[in-house]
Amino acid sequence: MNLDFSKLDGLVPAVIQDAASGRVLMLGFMNEEAFRKTVETGFATFFSRSRNKLWLKGESSGHRLVVREISTDCDQDAVLLKVEALGPGVCHEGYESCFFRRLADGAWQISDRRTYDPAAVYGGNK
Amino acid sequence: MNLDFSKLDGLVPAVIQDAASGRVLMLGFMNEEAFRKTVETGFATFFSRSRNKLWLKGESSGHRLVVREISTDCDQDAVLLKVEALGPGVCHEGYESCFFRRLADGAWQISDRRTYDPAAVYGGNK
Repeated sequence: MNLDFSKLDGLVPAVIQDAASGRVLMLGFMNEEAFRKTVETGFATFFSRSRNKLWLKGESSGHRLVVREISTDCDQDAVLLKVEALGPGVCHEGYESCFFRRLADGAWQISDRRTYDPAAVYGGNK
Repeated sequence: MNLDFSKLDGLVPAVIQDAASGRVLMLGFMNEEAFRKTVETGFATFFSRSRNKLWLKGESSGHRLVVREISTDCDQDAVLLKVEALGPGVCHEGYESCFFRRLADGAWQISDRRTYDPAAVYGGNK
């Protein structure tokens, strides 16, 4: 289950797609250890570029991503995970999907409604 | 329609999803110029990291990606494009989707059938 981590300094992009609805929920990055942990535990684990460490998605919110299927692409430098998302949304800003802004008339417009109150889940921390 | 190109040396990952089926077809990268061309022309245009230049998807195969909708995520450092894919497949290896390998029993297994003969489309060039 080799992947090519060389193109992005040890990372591959990981597309997270809702297994039931097909909606793309987020895009994260995995290093080799994060990918291995994802496979071993069955919960999506990323490498946080801002915090420079492994990040079990949902570790603070409880909104974990249960992995149903993992695919890779022709160059084996990206992965696609079909998941069951636990909780009301994957986005720390309170939305089902991080992709809640759509391009319309040359500007990003919020196209979704919040599915939960991020302050109640995350408090002062994200 | 600003995006944060700073995190990946001038690039953002672009997830390409079939607007009708919801299938994720490929993941590419766009620099600011590729993104602008994508918006202006309505055809997905990437920045090829291997060739170090703009790459109109389908320029050699004719398999262009007609953009139907563009979203960005909470951090505005990734984009999601819903597209109509012209032609039998987006993958230069002859598949509908570049994500044609699935993890099964600890190994990548080809999970799709080819939808066209890449040699007939690309000849010796990819």
